[in-house]
Amino acid sequence: MTGRLIGVGTGPGDPELLTLKAVRVLAMADVVAHFAKEGRTGNARATVEGFLRPDAVELPLRYPVTTEIPHDNAAYAAAIATFYAEATAAVAEHLAAGRTVAVLSEGDPLFYGSYMHLHVRLAPRWPAEVIPGVTAMSGCWSQAGLPLVQGDDILTVLPGTLPESELTRRIADSPASVIMKVGRNLPRIRRALEGAGKLARAVYVERGTMDRTVTTPLAAKTDDSAPYFSLVLVPGWEGRP
Amino acid sequence: MTGRLIGVGTGPGDPELLTLKAVRVLAMADVVAHFAKEGRTGNARATVEGFLRPDAVELPLRYPVTTEIPHDNAAYAAAIATFYAEATAAVAEHLAAGRTVAVLSEGDPLFYGSYMHLHVRLAPRWPAEVIPGVTAMSGCWSQAGLPLVQGDDILTVLPGTLPESELTRRIADSPASVIMKVGRNLPRIRRALEGAGKLARAVYVERGTMDRTVTTPLAAKTDDSAPYFSLVLVPGWEGRP
Repeated sequence: MTGRLIGVGTGPGDPELLTLKAVRVLAMADVVAHFAKEGRTGNARATVEGFLRPDAVELPLRYPVTTEIPHDNAAYAAAIATFYAEATAAVAEHLAAGRTVAVLSEGDPLFYGSYMHLHVRLAPRWPAEVIPGVTAMSGCWSQAGLPLVQGDDILTVLPGTLPESELTRRIADSPASVIMKVGRNLPRIRRALEGAGKLARAVYVERGTMDRTVTTPLAAKTDDSAPYFSLVLVPGWEGRP
Repeated sequence: MTGRLIGVGTGPGDPELLTLKAVRVLAMADVVAHFAKEGRTGNARATVEGFLRPDAVELPLRYPVTTEIPHDNAAYAAAIATFYAEATAAVAEHLAAGRTVAVLSEGDPLFYGSYMHLHVRLAPRWPAEVIPGVTAMSGCWSQAGLPLVQGDDILTVLPGTLPESELTRRIADSPASVIMKVGRNLPRIRRALEGAGKLARAVYVERGTMDRTVTTPLAAKTDDSAPYFSLVLVPGWEGRP
């Protein structure tokens, strides 16, 4: 028996947006690993509730820090490096015992997913497969019914953590944008959109495809609070066809 | 009975990458519309083979032209405008009769999908819902096992139809890129990657998640032939963590 690593995209949140392949793999995996903050159930794990083999071993991987320390801080880098080394060792132990390990990933595993850190460390040593998933951004623009890009449009995906001048420049330079990691960055994102002359076209979506979802033109949103699961969309497809 | 329009993302090609929601909707839709070139079965229709209600009415929507006429040509615009007006009328007739119409879309409906043209014309008049799908690009980088973006990376999605100077500038300016619509544009895309100093990092993927798929470093690809279903990926996540 050879251990097998499978990165499983669990999609944007609605369990019905799991793929058939993800469902099949989750129903047979010996071990199901999932990332979460201490004391929380990660969103990916919540999405797959009811889809796991009843006797599957669960392997929660607990981030030691998330947003408490700035990410350019050496203490953050050290804590995260230790965390990924330990997570790799924990998964490797199951692989060495010949087990199939499914690692859950919100959205799509290789698109900003924590699974990537395990993949680069383990795929050279064991058979590894990645099951793509519906991204959070697809979930959000579908929920909003907002056509995003068409034909020869260009799309830029930007983390809201970028400096304001950088956000402004890139939003202005791209017909369509998706701004991720909104959260506490919302005031800066607003200013960048205004600076790029695109605030009026921006749409804010919170918890796309999940319960208690919110969709509103960003200009109509009166407060600056935004959860982690929120995005700003700037459609590129205007006045056409 | 009120007619209902549903845009259904069918994913990158592998039928197992259909979502549970797409499968549920396809099993109950009265009418299934799908875009294709004359004389061909579109990829989305091929993906859902075996998932439709046996008595579903099929409504093929045949593009009058695809790549025979340059897209900036007035003749192309006129032919396409007529086509979408007729397609809208054909779908509207079923909606007016109270039927549920599923419109298939390869990948994700609002991400470069033809469904968008029907959505903007019909959603103001009938209840419309969009079921997101796994995009072709997710299918390709998952197939390649290629981590694409992480942390604060920026991703730019570029159509290969752009002028070479524009491609070069944007590829150079973005940590990660996905170049779509490769096909006959491959020689120009190669030159742009070389100009941006990123040819060595580019990965070519053909028919991701489908039969007879190909994954190769672009620099190792010796010919310039590329089918419609091919992409070039430039990962942004290098030398980390």
